[in-house]
Amino acid sequence: MSRRLKMGMVGGGRDAFIGAVHRMAAWLDGKIDLVAGAFSSNPEKSRLSGSDLSIDPKRVYASYQAMVEEEAKLPAGERIDFVSIVTPNHVHFPVAKAFLEGGFNVVCDKPMTFNLEEAIALRDIVRKTGKVFALTHNYTGYPMVKEAREMVRRGDLGRILKVVAEYPQGWLLPVSEEQNKEIWRMDPAKSGASCCIGDIGTHAENLGRYITGLEIEELCADFTTFVEGRQLEDDGSLLIHYQGGARGVILASQISAGEENDVNVRVYGTKASLEWHQEQPNELTVKYPDAPRRSFRRGNPYVSDIAKRFTRLPSGHPEAFIEAFANIYLEAARAIEAEVSGQQLPNDLDFPTVDDGVKGMAFITAAVQSAKSGCVWTKMPKT
Amino acid sequence: MSRRLKMGMVGGGRDAFIGAVHRMAAWLDGKIDLVAGAFSSNPEKSRLSGSDLSIDPKRVYASYQAMVEEEAKLPAGERIDFVSIVTPNHVHFPVAKAFLEGGFNVVCDKPMTFNLEEAIALRDIVRKTGKVFALTHNYTGYPMVKEAREMVRRGDLGRILKVVAEYPQGWLLPVSEEQNKEIWRMDPAKSGASCCIGDIGTHAENLGRYITGLEIEELCADFTTFVEGRQLEDDGSLLIHYQGGARGVILASQISAGEENDVNVRVYGTKASLEWHQEQPNELTVKYPDAPRRSFRRGNPYVSDIAKRFTRLPSGHPEAFIEAFANIYLEAARAIEAEVSGQQLPNDLDFPTVDDGVKGMAFITAAVQSAKSGCVWTKMPKT
Amino acid sequence: MSRRLKMGMVGGGRDAFIGAVHRMAAWLDGKIDLVAGAFSSNPEKSRLSGSDLSIDPKRVYASYQAMVEEEAKLPAGERIDFVSIVTPNHVHFPVAKAFLEGGFNVVCDKPMTFNLEEAIALRDIVRKTGKVFALTHNYTGYPMVKEAREMVRRGDLGRILKVVAEYPQGWLLPVSEEQNKEIWRMDPAKSGASCCIGDIGTHAENLGRYITGLEIEELCADFTTFVEGRQLEDDGSLLIHYQGGARGVILASQISAGEENDVNVRVYGTKASLEWHQEQPNELTVKYPDAPRRSFRRGNPYVSDIAKRFTRLPSGHPEAFIEAFANIYLEAARAIEAEVSGQQLPNDLDFPTVDDGVKGMAFITAAVQSAKSGCVWTKMPKT
Amino acid sequence: MSRRLKMGMVGGGRDAFIGAVHRMAAWLDGKIDLVAGAFSSNPEKSRLSGSDLSIDPKRVYASYQAMVEEEAKLPAGERIDFVSIVTPNHVHFPVAKAFLEGGFNVVCDKPMTFNLEEAIALRDIVRKTGKVFALTHNYTGYPMVKEAREMVRRGDLGRILKVVAEYPQGWLLPVSEEQNKEIWRMDPAKSGASCCIGDIGTHAENLGRYITGLEIEELCADFTTFVEGRQLEDDGSLLIHYQGGARGVILASQISAGEENDVNVRVYGTKASLEWHQEQPNELTVKYPDAPRRSFRRGNPYVSDIAKRFTRLPSGHPEAFIEAFANIYLEAARAIEAEVSGQQLPNDLDFPTVDDGVKGMAFITAAVQSAKSGCVWTKMPKT
Repeated sequence: MSRRLKMGMVGGGRDAFIGAVHRMAAWLDGKIDLVAGAFSSNPEKSRLSGSDLSIDPKRVYASYQAMVEEEAKLPAGERIDFVSIVTPNHVHFPVAKAFLEGGFNVVCDKPMTFNLEEAIALRDIVRKTGKVFALTHNYTGYPMVKEAREMVRRGDLGRILKVVAEYPQGWLLPVSEEQNKEIWRMDPAKSGASCCIGDIGTHAENLGRYITGLEIEELCADFTTFVEGRQLEDDGSLLIHYQGGARGVILASQISAGEENDVNVRVYGTKASLEWHQEQPNELTVKYPDAPRRSFRRGNPYVSDIAKRFTRLPSGHPEAFIEAFANIYLEAARAIEAEVSGQQLPNDLDFPTVDDGVKGMAFITAAVQSAKSGCVWTKMPKT
Repeated sequence: MSRRLKMGMVGGGRDAFIGAVHRMAAWLDGKIDLVAGAFSSNPEKSRLSGSDLSIDPKRVYASYQAMVEEEAKLPAGERIDFVSIVTPNHVHFPVAKAFLEGGFNVVCDKPMTFNLEEAIALRDIVRKTGKVFALTHNYTGYPMVKEAREMVRRGDLGRILKVVAEYPQGWLLPVSEEQNKEIWRMDPAKSGASCCIGDIGTHAENLGRYITGLEIEELCADFTTFVEGRQLEDDGSLLIHYQGGARGVILASQISAGEENDVNVRVYGTKASLEWHQEQPNELTVKYPDAPRRSFRRGNPYVSDIAKRFTRLPSGHPEAFIEAFANIYLEAARAIEAEVSGQQLPNDLDFPTVDDGVKGMAFITAAVQSAKSGCVWTKMPKT
Repeated sequence: MSRRLKMGMVGGGRDAFIGAVHRMAAWLDGKIDLVAGAFSSNPEKSRLSGSDLSIDPKRVYASYQAMVEEEAKLPAGERIDFVSIVTPNHVHFPVAKAFLEGGFNVVCDKPMTFNLEEAIALRDIVRKTGKVFALTHNYTGYPMVKEAREMVRRGDLGRILKVVAEYPQGWLLPVSEEQNKEIWRMDPAKSGASCCIGDIGTHAENLGRYITGLEIEELCADFTTFVEGRQLEDDGSLLIHYQGGARGVILASQISAGEENDVNVRVYGTKASLEWHQEQPNELTVKYPDAPRRSFRRGNPYVSDIAKRFTRLPSGHPEAFIEAFANIYLEAARAIEAEVSGQQLPNDLDFPTVDDGVKGMAFITAAVQSAKSGCVWTKMPKT
Repeated sequence: MSRRLKMGMVGGGRDAFIGAVHRMAAWLDGKIDLVAGAFSSNPEKSRLSGSDLSIDPKRVYASYQAMVEEEAKLPAGERIDFVSIVTPNHVHFPVAKAFLEGGFNVVCDKPMTFNLEEAIALRDIVRKTGKVFALTHNYTGYPMVKEAREMVRRGDLGRILKVVAEYPQGWLLPVSEEQNKEIWRMDPAKSGASCCIGDIGTHAENLGRYITGLEIEELCADFTTFVEGRQLEDDGSLLIHYQGGARGVILASQISAGEENDVNVRVYGTKASLEWHQEQPNELTVKYPDAPRRSFRRGNPYVSDIAKRFTRLPSGHPEAFIEAFANIYLEAARAIEAEVSGQQLPNDLDFPTVDDGVKGMAFITAAVQSAKSGCVWTKMPKT
């Protein structure tokens, strides 16, 4: 009989959006139980959140430090197998460090850290401890995104010439000054040096890189703060030169009225191009110079093995955001199962790693630097 | 601290599609644990399925009869709070009867029973036992379907004139004779008197009724068996007269090449019309004679309270099939929690009941009768 | 140097919608000049309309009878080469008869005649006179409809199992009683025995037959008059048995709130299915059981020769209603050029003929008969 | 009786794409006759083209110089009222100059001239001669583009923050070296200093400016020549700072596999945003922060007067490229009618003028300069 993994959570208390998403993603497939948590830096809120979640009060902690310490004392099989970190950005690093060094595997929300230095340090810690570290760049969990990557890998698109990735949102447009203050993403002390590019531009960057494998050489970033009184940008447009000559464009915005979360990416090659939109995630459109467009649809027999492996339902019964998010958890769980049972990690793991996190932070760093210097072309930092 | 509900399952062994869906729907929100099951009429297959699911072997049963008997012996709080029935149609009734009469609440897949007589008998049992019975007409779990119903209720569409509901599939088209034999839905001994209308036509009927509240007065059904050697129809088209003068059309097909699961419904009223497609479930289009079309999108502040109540994610982060299915479980769980704790059931419950099941079976019965008599107009049977 | 054809028009005076469409269709390609007309049964309105159109006042006639007589007196090369008939239905036959017998070719709007008897009589006249007669079932002029027919002819779809054709409109829903009176289509003395099916149901029928070549054997029609005080139906739903075993559904409506003119057709075969919508006419979607959907788009090198022949613009520069309508005129003009120059007609002509008109009227006749008799299955009349 | 205008044409001989489009646009509404032309710099080809078009051989000229001279000798009412210039870019200026100074009105294809100096000189000539000059930035002829402009003017979108305009094409991707040589747009001696931005980037620029009224202050352009052996860019991405603080992005490409002509524009304001795609030109989507999206559709009673004025068909009967192009001709014709009859020009004319042409050439000039200098921010030149 297989064993269900035990998860702890740091952050994700009452009313936190992303914590609830992580929990549903973890629960969906019936392979992970949530058994412990430090759900808030406010101990009372943590306690209430634990109660909402039917968690044994003894394992609801007042701080992540207490959680590391106490869980480590529990016998193997009872203590958590991994922790899920769903706090604001500035807390990612210390929590991840504490748990990794305390002997725990980690699933962490993105962007990975507060700044590039922390990212590099975290990479060292992951390497040193040998623990599993998964970063929830969740859009790469969509089966049709994996299909897109397979197409590029197989050469269906020929040589890649151009990548256009967008993430338009409108939620930071119509906010009052009061609401403004409560948005931690606009606080440089919590969010880091960037809001829009750090929060969603990185998703666009990650998505393009995941599908194409292309690495950015240099970029030119135009940041704008449209709403007065903000310290960070709420809109960013980037031109990109990839290594090897391909070109890219990343458009991210949080002030685009009425846009929701239509992360989308177009990849243009010498033989064909592809287009994917997360608001219609079950379809992947491929366009050819000399043949009818094709719509690849999740769940069909003709999709690649990797897309099939991350599919739960037949075609036409749509899967969506939570399922894609759960795919990150499923893969991380495969690695964690191996780790906790002392086996070698599978060699076909497919989830974002600490290296993706470092690249994401390098991207943010370069973008901020370019924008601050008046949008000059800026090389990606060495990492 | 709230308690998680304990679920048992009958059917849903290895390789069964719908059983896996029910489990994900139950797990998604972290409020239900699967703790027991008779997963197959084959005891060994049941045992292996239980092991896959990390279920205590003592609670993996060789038959549903054993399961009722043994679970009933367990103390309250330990025994299952409800059973989920995910077998072929002809087994629904005896299993439901056994568990209801054994004191358990029931969630049951559709169509509810093998025939109308069983449906009426089941309704009596539900009434007599006072247990919760939920039927998984899952499409009514979609938030934008609930929004559609609200629009009709509020009168946004005026008086309803016409309903067109379709469920086109192609999966029964390209099957070999060998595969054909294995499809229990084509076996009248398991499926009942209808395949296409019983399996998916009822979804279309249920969806139209859920949204509009209209009851069918009489119908005219044209059934076709396109693939030779089949005993049941693989395609059905129906004209409908609703009570009160509205008209309807239901088109269901299992031999429509390349169609997946695009259940869809259009409702035409004197003031406006609406259109919803399950393959794009987060949108609801409303058309007006004299104003721009409007696209209502799940997760926005402007949707009705009922749509909000069944929503987990912000707008633009799509929800889909499993989430809608889970909404049926969430509502059933609300009722079951009350039932097992001896409280009165909430009066705002929103899930398909045994009465919906009876109406569905009456619809199938009338359709089969009309089709057999050469497509004459046939009144809905009294129930 | 090629000669431009000379066209006359009967009907189509100021404010008439369809007359203006016919003129644009005739003018678009610079091969037809409008030189004469009896634009209204009201002589003064005819005169003003002629003036609007910069037509020589001597050739603006007070009646169609005068027009036949006077034009026939003009020398060949100066007199009209053909007449375009754009009057209400009840006038089609006498005008067509007069011009055909007067030695003129005819382009005529649909439905072809007031009733089936006239249609058969007209067919005799066309055969006897040997003149060109083209019926403007304009939707068959769309290149992607021609592509669809080619696909069926080539066997891409396998054996055709099912055809679903719809024509939903809403324009007759929100009219006042006053407006109601002015709508000649609702007047049985002008429109014939049917409104909705006669006006738009025939388009759906024609479209399905053009693409598939299937002939109706029998049908079952449910007509409804939703708006009080009308003598004819404003909504009709039909089940169809084609010769050879295929099945069909035709849904036509004029009271579907907010629907515009989305004539659409789906054809299901044993190998693939196709779908076309006139509101997005440049695309033709083909669905397969085991391969990605394909979107065929007008103007691409991969489309068939027949689709190319009726295309004016490169792909992506959309063509639409007027261009499709003009394709009927272009083909009729090819025939008329041959006729007036005494040459044999090309054998690859592709426009709706008097035979299509007879079939259309037979369809209307059968539908009306079925509806009147309470929706019983009715054979298509012999013609 | 109104008089039909007489048009001459320079360029547009056999096989020329855009000449045929201009003719259809001129003919569509029956208000313009083509009566003369110098259809090719090759006199024989010009003669044959004239014959194809049924034009009096005496008015088919061997050169545009001969055409100006001879037409000027004809009496008013017989000579052409205007000339349509549809040659490659480098010939626009001399032809336009000759006809304007010869006393003729001019309709001219875009980009207006070979370079900015010519553009400024042409503006002077237009002002001096007082003749009508219309530039066929045809996408502004679409009714729903006019509706978009009205929305912005009325303030429906609030203050404009951001404009994203794209024009992706793929037709220059899969060409052989041989074909490459024949593409005059890639020849700097004919096309000017830019290919991609000059040909289609200007359309995107013009579209954004037409709708929003925003003027570019500075831009940063990244040009790429993906196909070897070309002298001009086949792809360009631009970041834009508008006067007053709004931001913009223009993406144009001719090497985007499978893209056809989906010019599209999104405009984001503080209250709402809009989106329009030329491949679905009858719809205009408006998105709001707090209300359902609305789809405005051409031909409906609720659209603005300006959109209605440029509409020929009821809603749902799609209009497309030729109709939009014809709208430029219709408006130019209104001006030309006034000019040739000595009346004052209407003050509500709505077609692109010589001033738009100057701005377009200034845009190209700035973009080329930015790209050549390694994508530095470049101010728009004074004009």
